[in-house]
Amino acid sequence: MSAQQTSGQPSAVTKPWSDRLCDAIRDRNSAVCVGLDPRNEQLPAPLRCPAGAPMSQVAAAYREFCNGIIDAVADLVPVVKPQAAFFEQLGPAGMVALGEVIDHAIAAGLLVVLDGKRNDIGTTAEAYAAAYLGSTSPWRCDCLTVSPYLGDDSLDPFVAACDQTASGIFVLVKTSNPGGGFLQDQVAGELAIYRHVARWVTKTNQSRLGASGYGPVGAVVGATYPAQLAELRAAMPGTIILVPGFGAQGGAAADVAGGFDATGNGAIVNNSRHIIFAYQRKEYADTYGAARWQDAARVATQEMNQQLNAVRFTSR
Amino acid sequence: MSAQQTSGQPSAVTKPWSDRLCDAIRDRNSAVCVGLDPRNEQLPAPLRCPAGAPMSQVAAAYREFCNGIIDAVADLVPVVKPQAAFFEQLGPAGMVALGEVIDHAIAAGLLVVLDGKRNDIGTTAEAYAAAYLGSTSPWRCDCLTVSPYLGDDSLDPFVAACDQTASGIFVLVKTSNPGGGFLQDQVAGELAIYRHVARWVTKTNQSRLGASGYGPVGAVVGATYPAQLAELRAAMPGTIILVPGFGAQGGAAADVAGGFDATGNGAIVNNSRHIIFAYQRKEYADTYGAARWQDAARVATQEMNQQLNAVRFTSR
Repeated sequence: MSAQQTSGQPSAVTKPWSDRLCDAIRDRNSAVCVGLDPRNEQLPAPLRCPAGAPMSQVAAAYREFCNGIIDAVADLVPVVKPQAAFFEQLGPAGMVALGEVIDHAIAAGLLVVLDGKRNDIGTTAEAYAAAYLGSTSPWRCDCLTVSPYLGDDSLDPFVAACDQTASGIFVLVKTSNPGGGFLQDQVAGELAIYRHVARWVTKTNQSRLGASGYGPVGAVVGATYPAQLAELRAAMPGTIILVPGFGAQGGAAADVAGGFDATGNGAIVNNSRHIIFAYQRKEYADTYGAARWQDAARVATQEMNQQLNAVRFTSR
Repeated sequence: MSAQQTSGQPSAVTKPWSDRLCDAIRDRNSAVCVGLDPRNEQLPAPLRCPAGAPMSQVAAAYREFCNGIIDAVADLVPVVKPQAAFFEQLGPAGMVALGEVIDHAIAAGLLVVLDGKRNDIGTTAEAYAAAYLGSTSPWRCDCLTVSPYLGDDSLDPFVAACDQTASGIFVLVKTSNPGGGFLQDQVAGELAIYRHVARWVTKTNQSRLGASGYGPVGAVVGATYPAQLAELRAAMPGTIILVPGFGAQGGAAADVAGGFDATGNGAIVNNSRHIIFAYQRKEYADTYGAARWQDAARVATQEMNQQLNAVRFTSR
């Protein structure tokens, strides 16, 4: 974190998040989002900490590992997505490390989506929005994932923050887990609940479209539901889609093809474990091994770029 | 935070959360939960920081203020509920302060519900559960608020953590905000979405009931919907209800009466602003003023105890 963080700073970035993201996708020729999900038991030795190590030591290892991944992929992808939970798991020391990782990603020229799935009501939602959104907030994220269960008025403060700080959100619409349908697939008034959320997202974006044709309110739609991904791409014009579930969760390039628009833009596909822990995958382990974990992550990212680029311009 | 936090510690508390909470409600003769929602602009001078103050200075003020509130009410109530958002708004320095406030509450003999409304899928949900639940986790909370949009399988890791660490969760069922109905009131298969969540909560508790008759999986039901509160009290046997919306949001004692069981137990009613900033309320300002903000908080807590105790034993 920067030592001089103060309250009440003015906004610094003015180009809309949606345009910054779409430009970066085009400039890097990549729709890959690298998920920063550190887990001590999968860190390469010697970064891995012994069981019972102080949490401050594990937090330092997470910082070094994530910063190393950032260095390995910074010129290959537009965006990284730190997963807040893994840092919160280490207590306050973990949150300090999270701030340092975000700062490192920004310094490396990457956009940052914090995966926090936050939300609350009223002034508390305003506090979350002020916390995470925009380059003058203390965490300095470009974008935050947000949960919609609390309702449309709980999302409004995040949209207001997007307007004020040229930042963005990704609202959970159709998640990648098997049990996501428990509420999301319930049909009410002839529309699945996830379509109710999608409708709000689309409507909210309509008056906020940037030069890219996209607005600040994105949607999370899992790679594990290819039919719904294509359905939602059509149903949500102007909405950038964040697609989790590629790689370790089972999604492949063909599954996510339907998420892109006719120009191969409008979606980013996240991959966490199969990139950051690529050194453990059998196709890379022999060549790279634990000592060359950064090289393995870089090659895995290049391969995912090739896989996505083979489908994202031909999907329509 | 305690400097010696290490990973992989065994569980320390074995009495179920539900029994610890119900016992504390009975022992203190109080169903009040004091919400710790610090906001710099409402802090009493001289704790209030000037606009543009470093976030580390605001974080120190939040720690001093919240610890002062804890000292003022520790013998009057069973439980406090820090709101994560206000600490996260201060960046890493705020999270360090949050850890210190939780430690202070535990040392004062209070139970701690962290209001974080967290959730995610699979091993990420496990990380949130490991972060917050149980006395050996780094944040050492007894209980965490959790959002259900991601589905039943996203809640399972939290329930497993409750089983392992004698902790609890409160799942969002029917929230107190006007827009809560956007998804929660949608009717699917003849049941409102909030009733689908309530059904899962009740079922999950059935095999986990403690000596109190309650299980670890609580439900959030807002004071601003008295009819649904009474409906859900009847529909969710074995489920402790956390009732937000009392006080500044408009809920009164008569509105929350329906949340209690026949013995006046089974629910806690949260009040944040009308207790912690009681020194600003017109009925206390003349007597106490900013200099005696702790006395004002204490008297406001005593009055809320009286108001709730007048209804919670007569509601059936």
